[in-house]
Amino acid sequence: MKALLGDARLHDRVVTADVAASWIEDGMTLGLSGFTRAGEPKAVPFALVERARQAPLKVNIITGASLGSDVDRVLAEAGIVRRRLPYQSDDVMRRKINRGEILYIDQHLSETAEWIRDGVLPPIDVAIIEALAVTEAGLLIPTTSVGNSAIFAQRARRVIVEINTAQPRGLYGIHDVYDVGVRGARAPIPIIRPSDRIGLPGIPVDPDKILAVVFTHRPDSPSPITPPDGDTERIAAHILRFLRDEVAAGRLTPRLAPLQAGIGSVANAVLYGLLDSEFHDLEFYSEVLQDAVFDLIDAGKIVFASAAAVTLTEKKMRDVFGRFDAYRERLVLRPQEISNHPEIIRRLGLISINTALEADIYGNVNSTHVRGTQMMNGIGGSGDFARNARLTIFVTKSVAQNGAISRIVPFVSHVDHPEHDVDVLVTEYGYADLRGLAPIERAPLIIERCAHPDYRPLLMEYFREALKRGGQTPHVLEKAFAFHLNYERYGSMRAKPTTASIEAPVSSS
Amino acid sequence: MKALLGDARLHDRVVTADVAASWIEDGMTLGLSGFTRAGEPKAVPFALVERARQAPLKVNIITGASLGSDVDRVLAEAGIVRRRLPYQSDDVMRRKINRGEILYIDQHLSETAEWIRDGVLPPIDVAIIEALAVTEAGLLIPTTSVGNSAIFAQRARRVIVEINTAQPRGLYGIHDVYDVGVRGARAPIPIIRPSDRIGLPGIPVDPDKILAVVFTHRPDSPSPITPPDGDTERIAAHILRFLRDEVAAGRLTPRLAPLQAGIGSVANAVLYGLLDSEFHDLEFYSEVLQDAVFDLIDAGKIVFASAAAVTLTEKKMRDVFGRFDAYRERLVLRPQEISNHPEIIRRLGLISINTALEADIYGNVNSTHVRGTQMMNGIGGSGDFARNARLTIFVTKSVAQNGAISRIVPFVSHVDHPEHDVDVLVTEYGYADLRGLAPIERAPLIIERCAHPDYRPLLMEYFREALKRGGQTPHVLEKAFAFHLNYERYGSMRAKPTTASIEAPVSSS
Repeated sequence: MKALLGDARLHDRVVTADVAASWIEDGMTLGLSGFTRAGEPKAVPFALVERARQAPLKVNIITGASLGSDVDRVLAEAGIVRRRLPYQSDDVMRRKINRGEILYIDQHLSETAEWIRDGVLPPIDVAIIEALAVTEAGLLIPTTSVGNSAIFAQRARRVIVEINTAQPRGLYGIHDVYDVGVRGARAPIPIIRPSDRIGLPGIPVDPDKILAVVFTHRPDSPSPITPPDGDTERIAAHILRFLRDEVAAGRLTPRLAPLQAGIGSVANAVLYGLLDSEFHDLEFYSEVLQDAVFDLIDAGKIVFASAAAVTLTEKKMRDVFGRFDAYRERLVLRPQEISNHPEIIRRLGLISINTALEADIYGNVNSTHVRGTQMMNGIGGSGDFARNARLTIFVTKSVAQNGAISRIVPFVSHVDHPEHDVDVLVTEYGYADLRGLAPIERAPLIIERCAHPDYRPLLMEYFREALKRGGQTPHVLEKAFAFHLNYERYGSMRAKPTTASIEAPVSSS
Repeated sequence: MKALLGDARLHDRVVTADVAASWIEDGMTLGLSGFTRAGEPKAVPFALVERARQAPLKVNIITGASLGSDVDRVLAEAGIVRRRLPYQSDDVMRRKINRGEILYIDQHLSETAEWIRDGVLPPIDVAIIEALAVTEAGLLIPTTSVGNSAIFAQRARRVIVEINTAQPRGLYGIHDVYDVGVRGARAPIPIIRPSDRIGLPGIPVDPDKILAVVFTHRPDSPSPITPPDGDTERIAAHILRFLRDEVAAGRLTPRLAPLQAGIGSVANAVLYGLLDSEFHDLEFYSEVLQDAVFDLIDAGKIVFASAAAVTLTEKKMRDVFGRFDAYRERLVLRPQEISNHPEIIRRLGLISINTALEADIYGNVNSTHVRGTQMMNGIGGSGDFARNARLTIFVTKSVAQNGAISRIVPFVSHVDHPEHDVDVLVTEYGYADLRGLAPIERAPLIIERCAHPDYRPLLMEYFREALKRGGQTPHVLEKAFAFHLNYERYGSMRAKPTTASIEAPVSSS
């Protein structure tokens, strides 16, 4: 226990999760560790839910990003979340958000720390942070994610530490915690390679602020990533072909540029596609390390990887967590403010690969809202990367629901990434390189290269009608959402409507 | 002449504009100096237009931003522009763009230099750069703008220099030209205060690349900024009130934070509003120095101002250009890549004020497209600033065309700035502080504080109907563009439609 709590003063603060939870009051704002389902506190949130059965309790929850271990689910089910930011991916919470029962602030993942630092958000009353240990020197050693834990520990009034003895001890030494300081009195962040270590191996925390220490023993919930299928493999192959074309054009070398890949099956498939490629000595500067990164390190393809979290499948956890020493020199986990910082993303010149929910014929991308209204997960870090990367690639399968939904539409029902930020769009049918093209050049290219063949005629019909009306970005506004409305009414975006029953415009009556 | 051409080898290259233009060939890509109507070449473009009367000529034109002296107009009228980027603001060119006769690539102003450096754009055959002089040391001294001139001079195959003897000699020493280097092998940009000088007083240019030197004597065309009116003064007053509230909340001091203000009457009015305020020792880190900045320096309110260009009214030019020595220690002009660099904007923590063409009830902003299709000017630097500033403020008058157009709509017809990037929205009716609010909280606030009273009931009616359908961002998709369609059909967004004639959705027939 000495190694886990190096500061003897903390020994008296060890309590059960129930006791720690009893100190959390109605109306408080809580900062929880956790990023892409890794490194969230696994005891106090459950105790808090139990406690809420006795007395009314509503809290605001700020995290790094999504929480694992069903924490978001149980918090949502218990109805104790008033406000939630900056990201979630749980389906119970999602339903409550979409019913307006939880106020959800969907934020660029690099910006939450700035808002906390500037006092834009309510002060954090209690931070609850999972840790491997608190050292004698007062450093809280995070587990599988750093996320926003450093800013929480720095700014929260009180801190509850969950020491999780089930997390791999091999993670010691993998973290690099750098404090950017306040805006206006801030030096350049001295990262010029993904491998640069610029901070401390843990989070400095004032021992007097530590309200409680709770011991837990429960591994992270495993990543639900599905293996590549035919379509994701085809998408990966198109991306590799695009990257080869860039090398041939002299714009990249076979070492490419530091890669960022969003979480998900497509990103994982793309990374696996690199395994057998000619590309070598690759670097990775991203939010999260998925299974494929470890395989690429094992194969000698990736020489260094930087992220804010490690999120693995159960199989991969068993594989690598026992022998983590082998990776420590090749990995670093940073605060999400650093992994996603515009300054670093622009300086390193990342190749950024993220998933689109839908894209339109001009290259605008919707990452968040189903049919413009229903929140899926959130924008996550995609905006941090898309705006600042050297190459911004968005991927999506061309259709969903057996073809009832086209992922390429005339006008996206919500814009997270305006066309200015989208360089390349990829589906299983091919890639459209949009750089340097005017909108009227982009549309036929996207339709021809990326749309599903069943939807190409409909999209071209829309584009041709729009073209007749002219404009930099031609549209037929009264039909712009016809695909979405078709789906809502007839169950398919390409359905033949039986009536022409679009309602009259809003009017002053 | 020795002082104007320090390198004697250049004396032989002095030619007329006609001769210089004769060396420009059909199909070439040209890089022209000029940013916000300042410092564009004023002779060769006109000679080029003359030359095009003899033989077919089409060129691609890349600039810093908008060109003065009607250069964009005459190029557009002559029909010699194939592709144009990254920004323009001329109404003849605008019409040609919207007819599809000129391919216009609307780009974040910080990114053009990166595309040139990476070889994404066609190589620049000839750069045409206005200068005060070329020094003995081979430095080209820019005039009233730096814009993209440094990257043009570095990467173009050949350079034509226009020495403009009508530009104020007092500009010597105001420029600071820093080369960021290629991405992936780039150091941090060492600016930590707006006043930091980090580069050279001019643009290094290989004398062997200088194809021609042309002498001109013609001042910049004056800024067309209109004086503040009642509405812009009210907008300015609301912004000052917001800033005071931020000081009262402890989030800012009376020194505020470095200010960025887009070009235009509202921004100018806001800056004039600072003259009689309690704020002091202000800094300015922006794209362009307008009249107000000089008044604020004179009044001792602004202690330092950094930008990429100086654009003044005729009166102000007469006032300051003759006594520019008085300002040199308080001003710097930088490449637009630096004035608009995400790294610096985020580090300094700017307060960014830009104009919206329209905003929607959830805070998404359209900066570019009239009714979603017709390009106005372009996104300019607003995306560089909005994404990375500490405080992102968008301003607009609540209505246009005597109330026929509401600037607040249910769903913007084009998204340049997604709601994630918009902190505060301001009209002459008030400000809506959107930070930390979920979309369903934002809508009533924007409607109540910012919309014109005549439109509030219509907007609330839309929002209430949308709310019944639920979702994170409630919408009634079939009515989302009803305001715009009303205007197209009945000449007013609030018109009562006489028929309910919206067409059927696209269908596979």
